[in-house]
Amino acid sequence: MDTICAISTAPGVGGIAVIRVSGPDALQVCDRIFQPKVAGKSLSRQKAYSLTYGSVAGEDGEIVDEVIAAVFHAPHSFTGENTVEISCHGSTYIQQRILQTLITAGCRMARPGEFTQRAFMNGKMDLSQAEAVADLIASTSAGQHRLAMNQMRGGFSRELANLRDQLLELTSLMELELDFSDHEELEFADRGELRTLSGKIEQVIARLAHSFSVGNVIKNGVPVAIIGETNAGKSTLLNALLNEEKAIVSDIHGTTRDVIEDTININGQLFRFIDTAGIRETSDTIEALGIERSFKALDQAQIVILMYDLTRDTDESRSFCQRIAPRLSGKSVILALNKCDLYPESLPSHPEFPEDWHQIAISAKSKLHIPELKRLLTETSSLSSIQAGDIIVSNARHYEALTHALDAIHRVQEGLQTSLSGDFISQDLRECIYHLSDIVGEVTTDQVLGTIFQKFCIGK
Amino acid sequence: MDTICAISTAPGVGGIAVIRVSGPDALQVCDRIFQPKVAGKSLSRQKAYSLTYGSVAGEDGEIVDEVIAAVFHAPHSFTGENTVEISCHGSTYIQQRILQTLITAGCRMARPGEFTQRAFMNGKMDLSQAEAVADLIASTSAGQHRLAMNQMRGGFSRELANLRDQLLELTSLMELELDFSDHEELEFADRGELRTLSGKIEQVIARLAHSFSVGNVIKNGVPVAIIGETNAGKSTLLNALLNEEKAIVSDIHGTTRDVIEDTININGQLFRFIDTAGIRETSDTIEALGIERSFKALDQAQIVILMYDLTRDTDESRSFCQRIAPRLSGKSVILALNKCDLYPESLPSHPEFPEDWHQIAISAKSKLHIPELKRLLTETSSLSSIQAGDIIVSNARHYEALTHALDAIHRVQEGLQTSLSGDFISQDLRECIYHLSDIVGEVTTDQVLGTIFQKFCIGK
Repeated sequence: MDTICAISTAPGVGGIAVIRVSGPDALQVCDRIFQPKVAGKSLSRQKAYSLTYGSVAGEDGEIVDEVIAAVFHAPHSFTGENTVEISCHGSTYIQQRILQTLITAGCRMARPGEFTQRAFMNGKMDLSQAEAVADLIASTSAGQHRLAMNQMRGGFSRELANLRDQLLELTSLMELELDFSDHEELEFADRGELRTLSGKIEQVIARLAHSFSVGNVIKNGVPVAIIGETNAGKSTLLNALLNEEKAIVSDIHGTTRDVIEDTININGQLFRFIDTAGIRETSDTIEALGIERSFKALDQAQIVILMYDLTRDTDESRSFCQRIAPRLSGKSVILALNKCDLYPESLPSHPEFPEDWHQIAISAKSKLHIPELKRLLTETSSLSSIQAGDIIVSNARHYEALTHALDAIHRVQEGLQTSLSGDFISQDLRECIYHLSDIVGEVTTDQVLGTIFQKFCIGK
Repeated sequence: MDTICAISTAPGVGGIAVIRVSGPDALQVCDRIFQPKVAGKSLSRQKAYSLTYGSVAGEDGEIVDEVIAAVFHAPHSFTGENTVEISCHGSTYIQQRILQTLITAGCRMARPGEFTQRAFMNGKMDLSQAEAVADLIASTSAGQHRLAMNQMRGGFSRELANLRDQLLELTSLMELELDFSDHEELEFADRGELRTLSGKIEQVIARLAHSFSVGNVIKNGVPVAIIGETNAGKSTLLNALLNEEKAIVSDIHGTTRDVIEDTININGQLFRFIDTAGIRETSDTIEALGIERSFKALDQAQIVILMYDLTRDTDESRSFCQRIAPRLSGKSVILALNKCDLYPESLPSHPEFPEDWHQIAISAKSKLHIPELKRLLTETSSLSSIQAGDIIVSNARHYEALTHALDAIHRVQEGLQTSLSGDFISQDLRECIYHLSDIVGEVTTDQVLGTIFQKFCIGK
């Protein structure tokens, strides 16, 4: 096994940076470049969980930096291998020089996710926990963080282990039935028990699989569409929501919000604003070609903010709302009565609009009642009821495996109903177990593992 | 004294991040938020230089992250205070949550450079060493790194301490002279000795002050101007130099090269390309208004690359070179004979150009002989002769103090020559000592200190 190294802290200049070295020779390799401040304190002689002060010298003997080296002994490290974490000054030049020095001393650069992959390989965590590490690092909202943390700490893994225990029990009962298959009177009693047990298992798998719709929304944001006539103030509202967020985000260095365009963290929950720019025309062009694509996008939305310009409270405007209403059924609609600062009279009543639409008067430009709108968005999204301990699937690979497991357990149930031969049922049970084992990485191929860890950042 | 906290690693998402907590209550504050994996291992009971595995819990009891806490005891830490460094997963969300949790537990956010300021205040380093920490973190080239490292490790401080010892010796000899001022026969002997000693001191201070011209170039880059007629290939050359560098730099995450436009690291040495875009016209407009400003910029250059288009080897082109030659005297000139790939004949001789101009045939577009040009740049710059141990001043504040000290020692020397009263000479000696003490921060005002540490990044 190679000894690998990488910069584990965020790229760029910082006060300090941490370079991680892991592998069977981690201590020996580091000793080649590390000069302890106190003679004799070579890293291979240091205790586990200890810090040693010293300097790193380059090939030419010149001091590259004064550093602190943290020593971890296998198996009590993140990777399960001997590990040294070198904490150096955060200049990019120094980080690169130390990496080069380590490579000259016998390390190789770690591939993305290789430290976590080794943790998985060494049994420090199962695959779903390893995947949660990447989610945890990428988390930008309280919801994402909670999902990933729960998954990393093994909540999902324990649920899966329970399921597999029950499936194994079911399998052994099936085998018992097979063993006694000559005694026909035994069969019926067992099959009843088997049906009850398989029903319980089916419920848990189904609940987990269905939780993906929520998990996906937590991970990628509640899909929201802002629609309305031209000049109703759609982009002003989006900017008002974004700008206010920017003021908060600017304190949080290097957030990735800019990468995923128009994703906003409101009260710890992500909202993803869908581009439905096409839906803004009045009656004449509403059926025009190309608009249909925008409507397709609209169909993804869970929440629709329908912008209504109070200063243009005409029949035509109302007609736009009414004509679009059927496309919004099943969605949470917030009717935002915009430009309320320019419309001092009391709000017009809109009996013609569906009763379940939430109404709120705002001014996107003057930023009036934006906090109230945000509160409404948070309340309207279905996520507010999630509890810390809830096990929610947010990984598409897990969802796929769960649907396969669900299919298999449905076939088991069907087989039990239709008095199918125990051999066939056993096969479906084994398939169900296989798919659940795939989630924790017990039967996962090297190729799939490679794909999973490739997506990690280097240094983790 | 407050207990302070900050994210010490680079901003943004990484595999891990480090949050530093320093101050008298660092251990107690961290214990409020830290739950050790093994019961009883509270941080205040852990040994110095030890690592403890555990988790950070928010105010609501919810687990924010699983972390490793490094414990340092005063005075054996960077700041000289009790310090905890919390190594967490590098999500921006987690970093912010842990900071918030620490603040709730009794910390306050550290100001920029406050950790280093405390290290200075607690006598862990003098001011010039503290300033070197910032330079070290900002270093992007081998030259900058070597300067800062030498200064941080106290090379400059030791030189200054030597100087002050000698100045104190001189002062005590002056006082001896004052004590025996009645015995006129003693004076002459002592003054001779004093003159020798002051001469030695003057030499060292002068050498340090003069080293600033080199130190400044190492820190900010060797100023280079690329000039030539329109279409001679100036920007193509700059791109060729930059692009090749970009390929190297892209491996070095988050280098700050983009911020300082057109600064290129060639063989570990910085080169700063000066904008002399105005100097590109032929004879007709060369005297035009506005060009003079470009010539002023040209005056800063230490090296000038004069681009000569071989495919337009006309009298006019030669005339441009000859007319510009007087403006280039005293500078290192590299005559780059460009487009050599389109000019297969042997190179034209240019006896009319000054003999000390280096000539090199290149093709900026086809990237021919660019490495040779780079080697020529490195050799031509005066920096190649710098040794690792050389003490070179690169900080403008230090340079200013040294010139004041130099003025003072000159007055001392003058006083000794002109048999000035010992009282006056003593005063100049004290002034000289004062300015040297200012460099290491012994007499520096709080306001100046504030200005110095303000420029640091947060977390250092």
